[in-house]
Amino acid sequence: MHSSFNITAPDQGLAAALQHKIDQKTKPLGALGQLEILARKVGLVQQRLDPQLNLPQMLVFAGDHGAARSGISAYPQDVTWQMVENFLAGGAAINVFARQNGFELAVVDAGVAHDFGRREGLIDAKVAPGTANYLEQPAMTAEQCAVAIARGAEIVRWVAARGCNVVGFGEMGIGNTAAAALITHCLTGTPLAACVGRGTGLDDAGLARKQGLLEKALARYRAGGGSDQPQAVLAEFGGFEIAMMAGAMLAAAEAKMLLLIDGYIVGAAALAAARLAPALIDYCVFCHRSAEAGHSAQLEAMRATPLLDLGLRLGEGTGAALAFPLLKAAVGFLDEMASFAAAGVSEKAAEMR
Amino acid sequence: MHSSFNITAPDQGLAAALQHKIDQKTKPLGALGQLEILARKVGLVQQRLDPQLNLPQMLVFAGDHGAARSGISAYPQDVTWQMVENFLAGGAAINVFARQNGFELAVVDAGVAHDFGRREGLIDAKVAPGTANYLEQPAMTAEQCAVAIARGAEIVRWVAARGCNVVGFGEMGIGNTAAAALITHCLTGTPLAACVGRGTGLDDAGLARKQGLLEKALARYRAGGGSDQPQAVLAEFGGFEIAMMAGAMLAAAEAKMLLLIDGYIVGAAALAAARLAPALIDYCVFCHRSAEAGHSAQLEAMRATPLLDLGLRLGEGTGAALAFPLLKAAVGFLDEMASFAAAGVSEKAAEMR
Repeated sequence: MHSSFNITAPDQGLAAALQHKIDQKTKPLGALGQLEILARKVGLVQQRLDPQLNLPQMLVFAGDHGAARSGISAYPQDVTWQMVENFLAGGAAINVFARQNGFELAVVDAGVAHDFGRREGLIDAKVAPGTANYLEQPAMTAEQCAVAIARGAEIVRWVAARGCNVVGFGEMGIGNTAAAALITHCLTGTPLAACVGRGTGLDDAGLARKQGLLEKALARYRAGGGSDQPQAVLAEFGGFEIAMMAGAMLAAAEAKMLLLIDGYIVGAAALAAARLAPALIDYCVFCHRSAEAGHSAQLEAMRATPLLDLGLRLGEGTGAALAFPLLKAAVGFLDEMASFAAAGVSEKAAEMR
Repeated sequence: MHSSFNITAPDQGLAAALQHKIDQKTKPLGALGQLEILARKVGLVQQRLDPQLNLPQMLVFAGDHGAARSGISAYPQDVTWQMVENFLAGGAAINVFARQNGFELAVVDAGVAHDFGRREGLIDAKVAPGTANYLEQPAMTAEQCAVAIARGAEIVRWVAARGCNVVGFGEMGIGNTAAAALITHCLTGTPLAACVGRGTGLDDAGLARKQGLLEKALARYRAGGGSDQPQAVLAEFGGFEIAMMAGAMLAAAEAKMLLLIDGYIVGAAALAAARLAPALIDYCVFCHRSAEAGHSAQLEAMRATPLLDLGLRLGEGTGAALAFPLLKAAVGFLDEMASFAAAGVSEKAAEMR
């Protein structure tokens, strides 16, 4: 499947000119910290000294997990479709933060166990009404996984065609921190116990139960000879929303868009996509450091430092929406700040550094 | 002087109602992390369940330091007035970030060694053209310090009268990380060496020289019986911009505004103001964790956790401007997010928590 995506690392030819432009701004060398790193990244992705952020789009992928019926989450499965309704009504956190930060928001039904009908703001890309329970069998077939990836890519290509060059990823799916934990374990080799966290709010007993169930699921997969090939892992543990995000990310990197990576679950999709096409990481802006146990393993594997660390554990793309003003700031200083020469600020400063 | 400010801690009577409103939002308990803490703070400061951010104002206080002539900074003193000109021309980082985030920006000449004349966007509150060199004598007289505090308060009262209820603090003054280090040492008891950092970019030799000079300045102050009373410390080490910010902060807390505290130098002013009126901290939003050595000592003394940690070391109020969208997000989710009941999202979630 990944052979159908043509993802190459951004040409570094512009790097020196970008750095020179940054260093001539009226500030000490490096004084804007991570914003300077971000400005270089955006400039290289867009191959411009004056990058622009056009029509930012937030895509929230929703899907249900068969394993949720086995007690891997603090919430009942119905909360997935109820929250999708909440997104469509404009009442969720991601609605508020997307509005505030100028995102167009679309919700993608990747595989919710509910019939929404045709709805404004909802993209129907449903592969099936929820995955199978990976405690008993693979969450999806190889073909379903390929369909999920292809539909994710199709959605992003449609968004790109409208002129968007920066896309935020969010998700909703009761049970999907468990799937993310299994994916993170399989793709990074971090012990499963270090990848399993409290999700949206398990207590100690719930966490122990979740860990036990996931060990069982993993044992079943390994007994069947389960590989660590990214698409096999996505198919085995799901969910549809994670596989579809991976496809959307591959298409976004292929289209040389900027990808705003939220937290743990979106990070699992990015990890799988990056294993299929390593250069994808060069297009990613990592937005929020999750408190979820396995996130640091993901970040290490992708050599990523997130912009924010606010103790969020909500998903939906909230971290991506909240980090977007920092991306605007990076592009803004590169475009609008004066140089030492233009501002008449002493060049002695440069000599003394 | 502080007896002229009437600063009381916000009434906690609304705390339970605010917490209830936050907990009824369609998200797991506590899932918005620091934004929830922020929402409670803003609600208590404004004594409203639906707080509002009105006419945000950024005030950048500039002043020169006599000690800058002795080599405590990587930059020559002229950079202070040159950067003020850059602010007035709209070309500095704070101009870009203030514009992006909807701040009105005013620059305050608290004591720059330069004659600007009458200028659009510049508030002339000059106490004197730069402080005296604290390596030889106190940076200012007790009367000058009182004047700086009073003028800072006057500026904020004028801003408040126009309807602003959130004010960001920034600064510019070559040499002012050195003054901040001395203030932080005197007011927290942290060893001076742990309070002295590289400022805007000293190398190892420059840092050693700065440390030696500040030890000398401190020895001179102690030999004269120097107290740790905040106004005495402000007068001894300056600068005018730091003392004026302290006065501005006291007036802002008195007016029950929200105070956006930038990094190390603004933090030194907040520390001094909080020593005069401890309840001031309840009105502060700490915006950015500085890499400057002594900032953690300040934060510990004020029991503060900053919102951002982006490796910025520029000052100007840039951290405050960049954190403002997070404050908007906190107020926004409190105002706009749906409750479980209103959205029809399963109450079972609440039972299982």
